Amino acid sequence: MKIILLSGGSGKRLWPLSNDSRSKQFLPVLRAPDGSPESMIQRVVRQLRDAGFGQDITIASNAGQKGILMNQLGEETEIIAEPERRDTFPAVALACQYLSKVRGCPDDEVVAVMPCDPFTTDGYFRVIGEMAEAVRQDRAQLVLMGITPDRPSSKFGYIVPEGKGETPMKVRRFTEKPPVEEAERLLEEGALWNGGVFVFRLGHITSISDKYQKHSDFRGYIENYAQYPRTSFDREVVEKARDVAVIPFDGEWKDLGTWNTLSGELGSPSSGNVVMGEHNSNTHVVNELGIPVFCDGMKDAVVACSPDGILVCAKNDTETLKDYTDRLVHRPMYEERRWGTSRVIDCAEYPDGFKTVAKVIAIKAGGSINYHLHRRRDEVWTIVNGTGLLALDGKVSVLERGQTVRIGAGMRHAVKADGELTIIEVQMGGVLSEEDIETFPWDWKDR
Amino acid sequence: MKIILLSGGSGKRLWPLSNDSRSKQFLPVLRAPDGSPESMIQRVVRQLRDAGFGQDITIASNAGQKGILMNQLGEETEIIAEPERRDTFPAVALACQYLSKVRGCPDDEVVAVMPCDPFTTDGYFRVIGEMAEAVRQDRAQLVLMGITPDRPSSKFGYIVPEGKGETPMKVRRFTEKPPVEEAERLLEEGALWNGGVFVFRLGHITSISDKYQKHSDFRGYIENYAQYPRTSFDREVVEKARDVAVIPFDGEWKDLGTWNTLSGELGSPSSGNVVMGEHNSNTHVVNELGIPVFCDGMKDAVVACSPDGILVCAKNDTETLKDYTDRLVHRPMYEERRWGTSRVIDCAEYPDGFKTVAKVIAIKAGGSINYHLHRRRDEVWTIVNGTGLLALDGKVSVLERGQTVRIGAGMRHAVKADGELTIIEVQMGGVLSEEDIETFPWDWKDR
Repeated sequence: MKIILLSGGSGKRLWPLSNDSRSKQFLPVLRAPDGSPESMIQRVVRQLRDAGFGQDITIASNAGQKGILMNQLGEETEIIAEPERRDTFPAVALACQYLSKVRGCPDDEVVAVMPCDPFTTDGYFRVIGEMAEAVRQDRAQLVLMGITPDRPSSKFGYIVPEGKGETPMKVRRFTEKPPVEEAERLLEEGALWNGGVFVFRLGHITSISDKYQKHSDFRGYIENYAQYPRTSFDREVVEKARDVAVIPFDGEWKDLGTWNTLSGELGSPSSGNVVMGEHNSNTHVVNELGIPVFCDGMKDAVVACSPDGILVCAKNDTETLKDYTDRLVHRPMYEERRWGTSRVIDCAEYPDGFKTVAKVIAIKAGGSINYHLHRRRDEVWTIVNGTGLLALDGKVSVLERGQTVRIGAGMRHAVKADGELTIIEVQMGGVLSEEDIETFPWDWKDR
Repeated sequence: MKIILLSGGSGKRLWPLSNDSRSKQFLPVLRAPDGSPESMIQRVVRQLRDAGFGQDITIASNAGQKGILMNQLGEETEIIAEPERRDTFPAVALACQYLSKVRGCPDDEVVAVMPCDPFTTDGYFRVIGEMAEAVRQDRAQLVLMGITPDRPSSKFGYIVPEGKGETPMKVRRFTEKPPVEEAERLLEEGALWNGGVFVFRLGHITSISDKYQKHSDFRGYIENYAQYPRTSFDREVVEKARDVAVIPFDGEWKDLGTWNTLSGELGSPSSGNVVMGEHNSNTHVVNELGIPVFCDGMKDAVVACSPDGILVCAKNDTETLKDYTDRLVHRPMYEERRWGTSRVIDCAEYPDGFKTVAKVIAIKAGGSINYHLHRRRDEVWTIVNGTGLLALDGKVSVLERGQTVRIGAGMRHAVKADGELTIIEVQMGGVLSEEDIETFPWDWKDR
């Protein structure tokens, strides 16, 4: 079996910890069994490895997440990045073409597609094994996981099975996010929540993909990705499938998609530099800033502080956050990259339109930043920790603590860390944009 | 009449906006009549000027506040800075010696001592005029202001007058911060709160001062300041006075000393980069940070964010804040100086003990920083806005936007702004301390 983990998402509902660069599945807010911080995707991959699926994981993602995925899951992680954001059907189709064309999987290979961020227990992965077995035995063309509901929620899609017999049960129909009253009736019918896990044979998806485009090698699918329709896997595959079955999972399963649900899983009432007074109840404070937070007298509240902003919210009101984040979100202030992290510590704009951004850039031991230039800004680097190599307009020099480097607009530069390398960068110019970058090949070994 | 404004205080109860460098009277959280932000001391000085006392103000303060006082009240402000912090009696005695020895005031000059931060109305200053008139007519040796209480508070000192007759009323006795039950009995007796305003003849205080030290000129009192006992004006002067009278003031009077009382006077529910949701009630958010705050679902709460930290607190629990601030307070992150402002944007310490602090230094047009050196740190300056002059080890050069200046340990440097000058400074070293500074004379005109 192959497993395609869908890693998409935006940063709106867990603002300010999540942002366009760090989606919710990457937040290190959970606890691994050894007590260290763990993100949702790290937890799922750990659970998959424990269940024996470690070698079978392919991650369907986008180019912007490639760095953080490698940083959190290891450089060897198999990542299929869509060239542009479309929807879940194109993302799954592309990953399936990769399995077929690059990995050489046969058409009858069993494939499971699943989300990268359910908060669940080991039984969940046993059910995935049962779903795969059902497909292998041709009990259905497509097997879904049905989560046993614990309340008539209007936030989920519902799967209505035929009867309550032996699994896999045949699916009679689907209902998308019904009102609560209808959800109550659905529960009486024995309906299950759609958990977003789908198991099928590879050839089933590649033949649907063929309706839109056919290429002899994988690169063709990357280059013509826009030919896939912007449609969801549910609409394009599930709703059109000949026979669909469902296997229920009735263990712990949570969508930690809002602060209200997430805070229940946080290891401790506070993390980071936080002092809690004596009059708080059911209140969680997460502080990723260097400055202290003092919290007292709060009830059923969540406080979250990051370089992107500060959230102070009653837990029951966190659902409304996504309605406001457009007014809150600017450029991501904290970014996790393949080579390390980048954190904005100050932004300013002067009356004449001149702008400055100061950042702390922390490059991992052995990490390197590509050879590149900016046309519209100057940068001043002060090396504050570690050692490394700098390539500047073709000349290589050693970087050491205390050094200052001036990188004028148009100057090509690359950097490589020996140990951890920390740089305070001051960007200056009339235009400071992430798009103002041109990259060039560079090989440190040649020099 | 001369007016001595007592400007002391620490930054604990209005943390994180107040800190050791910016006491509560300097917070620009009130609104001037023209709508611009105003601090408590700016408000009191404006009210004194409106009442015709503008030429009579002397501020008894300490060296650390001199810069911020000049910044907020003007360069010409008369400030008597105590050489070290002692208590209110030495501070008043020193200011009185200044009036006597430097300003040449006669012994029968009427002097009013008052706090710099009562939130009150014009009638307050009329009462001060009446108090001065009572001293001028020798109705008493010392006249106090009694605030008409609106509740039996245990937070104030009480003045019990004899009868309720014509003012000034003779004072029978004082009671310091009684329990609420006793405060209730005191109210029945017609007791008043001690408002901390005292009017007397200059010679009364200078003769008490003479018991501790006598010098022919003012410098003697500065140099021997430690000879004054560490005692309060109440204990040394009020309790020992021959005849004390009180004049009541029954207008608006508030001690804006906690977030609970201060938030009632804030002009708007939020200030700074704040988005308020639709489910807040009686909640105030003050944000001095560049990043946005989102607040929703809060009731009777105050949120305050500054470079020093973040407060999230039920208004009724803000009284307890001072019990925690020792655990919260580190070096002041935001400082207002004579020449402008300094704001820490990042601090780090590396495993080998090496430290960095990044600051944004904004120097006012025409402002200058003294010629000085640091023994134990290097600094890198990047000029991001404005122009100015740099003196570096005796050589003067022009500073312009985009320039980088490296100031090694031991190098003497001074800077002077033409227009507003903004510098991003990176400090680096094993020891980063405000005490690591030696200053030298420097005259820009000589060069």
